[in-house]
Amino acid sequence: MRTDVLVIGGSAAGIMAAVTAKKHYPEKDITLVRKEEKVLIPCGIPYTMATVDGPDNNLIPDAAVTGKGIELLIDEVLEINRENKRVSLKTGEEIAYERLILATGSKPFVPPIKGVELDGVFTIQKDFGLLETIKNRLDASKNLVIVGGGFIGIEFADECRKGRDIKVKIVEIMDHVLSLVCDDEFCLKAENKLKENGVEIYGGIKVNEIIGDNQVEGVRLSNGKELPADIVILATGVTPNIDLAKKAGLECDVKKGILVDEYMRTSDPDIFACGDCVEKPSFFGRNFEAGRLASIATNEGRVAGANLFELRREKQASIGIFATIVDNQAIGVAGLTRKQAEEAGIEVVVGKAEAINRHPGGMPGASKLGISLVFKAYDGTLIGAQVYGGYSVGEFTNILGLAIEKKMKAEDLATMQVGTHPALTASPIAYQLINAAEDAVSRL
Amino acid sequence: MRTDVLVIGGSAAGIMAAVTAKKHYPEKDITLVRKEEKVLIPCGIPYTMATVDGPDNNLIPDAAVTGKGIELLIDEVLEINRENKRVSLKTGEEIAYERLILATGSKPFVPPIKGVELDGVFTIQKDFGLLETIKNRLDASKNLVIVGGGFIGIEFADECRKGRDIKVKIVEIMDHVLSLVCDDEFCLKAENKLKENGVEIYGGIKVNEIIGDNQVEGVRLSNGKELPADIVILATGVTPNIDLAKKAGLECDVKKGILVDEYMRTSDPDIFACGDCVEKPSFFGRNFEAGRLASIATNEGRVAGANLFELRREKQASIGIFATIVDNQAIGVAGLTRKQAEEAGIEVVVGKAEAINRHPGGMPGASKLGISLVFKAYDGTLIGAQVYGGYSVGEFTNILGLAIEKKMKAEDLATMQVGTHPALTASPIAYQLINAAEDAVSRL
Repeated sequence: MRTDVLVIGGSAAGIMAAVTAKKHYPEKDITLVRKEEKVLIPCGIPYTMATVDGPDNNLIPDAAVTGKGIELLIDEVLEINRENKRVSLKTGEEIAYERLILATGSKPFVPPIKGVELDGVFTIQKDFGLLETIKNRLDASKNLVIVGGGFIGIEFADECRKGRDIKVKIVEIMDHVLSLVCDDEFCLKAENKLKENGVEIYGGIKVNEIIGDNQVEGVRLSNGKELPADIVILATGVTPNIDLAKKAGLECDVKKGILVDEYMRTSDPDIFACGDCVEKPSFFGRNFEAGRLASIATNEGRVAGANLFELRREKQASIGIFATIVDNQAIGVAGLTRKQAEEAGIEVVVGKAEAINRHPGGMPGASKLGISLVFKAYDGTLIGAQVYGGYSVGEFTNILGLAIEKKMKAEDLATMQVGTHPALTASPIAYQLINAAEDAVSRL
Repeated sequence: MRTDVLVIGGSAAGIMAAVTAKKHYPEKDITLVRKEEKVLIPCGIPYTMATVDGPDNNLIPDAAVTGKGIELLIDEVLEINRENKRVSLKTGEEIAYERLILATGSKPFVPPIKGVELDGVFTIQKDFGLLETIKNRLDASKNLVIVGGGFIGIEFADECRKGRDIKVKIVEIMDHVLSLVCDDEFCLKAENKLKENGVEIYGGIKVNEIIGDNQVEGVRLSNGKELPADIVILATGVTPNIDLAKKAGLECDVKKGILVDEYMRTSDPDIFACGDCVEKPSFFGRNFEAGRLASIATNEGRVAGANLFELRREKQASIGIFATIVDNQAIGVAGLTRKQAEEAGIEVVVGKAEAINRHPGGMPGASKLGISLVFKAYDGTLIGAQVYGGYSVGEFTNILGLAIEKKMKAEDLATMQVGTHPALTASPIAYQLINAAEDAVSRL
């Protein structure tokens, strides 16, 4: 079998790369090979536990691929033979390619703790059967301990409590949930909302051991305290899945992932890579690394796919832009936090503003929306922004991301042009982004 | 009496100019004089008819001014004496000023139709008593005709029907409601939602006469048809209120308003002006004029206030950015429509995309969100964008506005960095703004 373009991996990056390739090079045969029968929407995984009731309601339909004229193959690539540009599949077949795209994703990082192998201890993977197992186990459990209070951890905590008679506890090594990605006041917005909903948070503490015989029975914390648990979820991050790339002799960094250039080419110019498996250079330079997010993965896929037969696009170094929601409290982050900037020796000026997201305040859906903007004191450039509020936070975060991408300064933002509406936004007088910028202007 | 800065006008532009002035020049005495006892939130006016139940729940609190250390005076300025830098008030007093800011707003445009003076025919003004009268009259009416299907017209139509046994009709001289500001497919989104809610639309037709003896009884259309009405609302636009400026000999254009430079200075360098009373240069050049919006007014206020004693900011020509909502169908617009661009001789390429604003689609609050992007064919620059969807449209419109302000090209948008979340946005694969840009890329 032969194909012009072979994409390995069927999640966000792989699909996006394949679709973009077909769009840019419609005359080429494009084949996507993946090992999963069914593909989960990666960010939707926590919501399979309650809100959308099971992984069956959280699938990317195959039509997203086949409907665009892309060949879909369910199989596993075991090896890449770069010499004769072929891959060998688990089923024994070989596929010859002209261009190859690796989108092999990431694997959960399993912390080196005693007891992680016990029955009832789970990592979160893009695995349909695993999620069904976790969901069923939750339904029969009384005590859930989540190790790790990053956004996956808190989303699972918030979901798992819904409609279940279960005690949910989060153990987070840093002081607060989300401490790695938010400044404290935003961490506390999420943390307080979790607590309001009955989730217990153990911050600034480590899990030393997971205890139990065959079945998990609890976790032992670094202060000696034991928390009972009949299910434990490890939400302690991911590492790039570089097995195939390494085996093929492509340049990789074990921690960062497959090394790629600005066109998303690996060290073999006929092989591109994108998504969680590749390194993540940060928009803010070598002192930082961007996170592994589906939005970054697809952005890379859009670059890789467009560059296969002509170098059309350069990948900009990534800005971490994400939002999450606990109950009805949404939080969005773009770029660096004050903490991250200061720890890296960047002098900052922070501007803040808070207001109701409607005008007048009696309009339906009114809630507080607050913003914090982090500017480089040196030249007033926006390098980070955080927002909390209601459902508008999702797109609000994208305004913030764009402002960072465009290297806007406090003065630009203080006079930026916006539209406002009583039922949809704050009033133009109270518009939080502009007022937070104006707040910073005088101190820059 | 004397003051360092006197602001005339207490609505959005005046407040914003005064607050910005105090922020930038805290040592200066700032006085705001306005004739209204109570100040209405301008964009909230339609919602006083039902959603927030009366003008009392749609006020800008005086604390927005006095809480910032600004002197508030309820009085009317009758004349400006530029020679000795004093204004005379209705109460007979005089105020000496160092700098003056005119924020005198706009007046409803009353079309030259027979019968506009009849009892029961209303224009919409920022007048507390008038709104109470209209609301009471609506409660006792069976047939409302709204003349003009711009956004004020449709917002009133949608509001007035709520909780009332009243037939609501809109008569619009152009083919569809919102025709002046949206391309047809977006006009129809609003129009269809109005119809679904029982509002009758008479498009492409004129009102020739308002009929009745003392009391309004109906309107006669240009096709001879008569529509019964016991209340008529004229929503036919506004004209700048330049009376005071003209009398003071400041340069004005009767249609466009008070002429100002990029610092928001009038022809007298000690007198600034901002808001609906000033001309509105368009971001897209002299072939266009920006609309009168509270968000533009406050943007001008932020420039005027900062420039009073040192020229700190230049006002960028304005991009019209606004959103509205009918029932649960929101529509947002930034910049030029395809229609406006083409009528002005600009060759365009339009990119489109539509997707659910959640992922998976079973997440709560899921609805379709569609985007249309208007690019200059000449160089691929984004000059306009329209969006329809749910409540996220408000802030989504501001992403579009910023992309226009930053003169982004289709290729920039196709690779722009965003964040996504299942409960808050479309999936990164389906993200409408990026896909609409990618749709255009191939045709540019």
